Amino acid sequence: VVRALFLGFGHVGRRLAEILTRRERYPGLAALDLSVVAITTGRHGALANPSGIDLASALRAFDPEHLDHPDRTALASLDAVRGLDYDVLVEMTPLAIRARGEPAITHVREALLRGRHVVTCNKGPVAWAYEPLARLARERGCAFLFESTVMDGAPVFNLARHGLRGDTIERLAGILNSTTNVVLCALEEGLTLDEALARARALGVAEADPSDDLEGWDAAVKVAALGNVLLGGPLLPEEVERESLASVPPERVREAAARGRRIKMDCEAWREGGRLRGRVAARELPLDDPFALVAGTGSILRLTTALLGKLSLVEENPDLTTTAYGVLSDLLSLPGPPR
Amino acid sequence: VVRALFLGFGHVGRRLAEILTRRERYPGLAALDLSVVAITTGRHGALANPSGIDLASALRAFDPEHLDHPDRTALASLDAVRGLDYDVLVEMTPLAIRARGEPAITHVREALLRGRHVVTCNKGPVAWAYEPLARLARERGCAFLFESTVMDGAPVFNLARHGLRGDTIERLAGILNSTTNVVLCALEEGLTLDEALARARALGVAEADPSDDLEGWDAAVKVAALGNVLLGGPLLPEEVERESLASVPPERVREAAARGRRIKMDCEAWREGGRLRGRVAARELPLDDPFALVAGTGSILRLTTALLGKLSLVEENPDLTTTAYGVLSDLLSLPGPPR
Repeated sequence: VVRALFLGFGHVGRRLAEILTRRERYPGLAALDLSVVAITTGRHGALANPSGIDLASALRAFDPEHLDHPDRTALASLDAVRGLDYDVLVEMTPLAIRARGEPAITHVREALLRGRHVVTCNKGPVAWAYEPLARLARERGCAFLFESTVMDGAPVFNLARHGLRGDTIERLAGILNSTTNVVLCALEEGLTLDEALARARALGVAEADPSDDLEGWDAAVKVAALGNVLLGGPLLPEEVERESLASVPPERVREAAARGRRIKMDCEAWREGGRLRGRVAARELPLDDPFALVAGTGSILRLTTALLGKLSLVEENPDLTTTAYGVLSDLLSLPGPPR
Repeated sequence: VVRALFLGFGHVGRRLAEILTRRERYPGLAALDLSVVAITTGRHGALANPSGIDLASALRAFDPEHLDHPDRTALASLDAVRGLDYDVLVEMTPLAIRARGEPAITHVREALLRGRHVVTCNKGPVAWAYEPLARLARERGCAFLFESTVMDGAPVFNLARHGLRGDTIERLAGILNSTTNVVLCALEEGLTLDEALARARALGVAEADPSDDLEGWDAAVKVAALGNVLLGGPLLPEEVERESLASVPPERVREAAARGRRIKMDCEAWREGGRLRGRVAARELPLDDPFALVAGTGSILRLTTALLGKLSLVEENPDLTTTAYGVLSDLLSLPGPPR
């Protein structure tokens, strides 16, 4: 049995718990013998039980109407990482861009220092601290996996790790931010920016404050994560050139549509003069460009490699299950308990 | 060092040899310490040298003007498989549809029986004999890899093997045959079928006798291979419903184009009533369907899975290097020599 510590119990964590409570529906999950020994949150308290928490009751416990649970404790996340006994840290706290990926980076580092595996869907550690964390994981013989940080649970990193052996990725481009893509589709239909944002919120992709998405920060963090892992890094989110969607007038989107073209927020990373560069920018595309077809919350990543040439991965209509699946896929990729 | 036996030295084998002779250009290939101990062909003789054949001179030796080579021998393929000492069989003989994948299936089986790894770019063994060969490989502790059989070297099978752990593929669809896709693009431009076929031949994708491609046999073999590996099989090429492109009048293609639509040969496999089914059929698509954008020799495969939803892999403008890369990728995935 793999004993997991869950940090954060937001949308993804809860969907993950829901899937685990009905795992008999998914024959592929039979191999995953997981016991969740603690769940800590920022504002909703924590649960802990060395024999394993009942996830169905945990899902009810984080509902404000059911605040009592036999496993309730006042345990803080960092104390749980440092003090509890577990095999894998599942880091699902929200990304903190202003704090440059903290405290998730500290959570990941402390778990690795203790020789525990780490699975994270928080992009911060991969964007701001990939090299030292990956080195630490190698030194300690631990897994450091993060499949759900980019393109939800689509196997971006597994594709590169297992599908491109011997090849070299020279360049990557993608549509990677759902909020701006949903907004662009809505603007094209003639909605105002506020109406477009309301649609993105209704779909559950935009935050109450959408500025990190609109200003390209979420995309820049993803470009940095991809650059660090797939192109050899280093690339920090602050080094990625960003164009804000707020600076793209809605008329420009509608005019492009009237001419049979489409504006998309294109994310790119490439090596230039020995340096890794990244960019998030609005680009006008013809309708027969595969990037132009990426609708709503969908995404695409195109890799240009030395031997295989141009290869793209396309995800259509992802939802929370897709992201939660990325975490499951990482959990199923863990080697045995490290010691 | 991994000692390889090459069966077949056609376009793919020669491109593979060319890449290996200039491997210093590709840093990712440094890990591949390969020695080719024999190369056998159907009509051009064979070379054998237990210390490793010089590939540059081998490339010249199969040129009719340079028939002499110090390693030349009269060794037949099956005798080489059964008698030589090697670590991995690289099966690159041409696909024989009438012979239902033979003699490649026998080559693969005999190598596995001797406890040798197998890498094949011949679709026959995967389409007609996947289950027994995969079982034999497991029993003998050998690798049986075939990444370049579908979508050239694009990591179709690696994606499913390593990127979809715990998930279940429920359905797949794709554009998988280059000749029919090149022909359809040409018909749309107003070329006749003969002119379209001439273009496919000039691109090196169509055989002198293009009937296996036009009648959907090549696609059916690929659907069977994908069905056997990704959907749990069994599915034989003969069981795949086939529509022949020769039965699609060029006017139908041009009329669809005039209406802003496009005809594509769609390959599908899905489970229905406990049975695996496959189909290759002409379908009319709107231009905003990702399948409609697959031009020329490009290809797409869309997987529908239980947890991840719809995920597509798209390959643009592949060439011989792409297919040869699939073989290299398999060679780099081998575990150590099996004994």
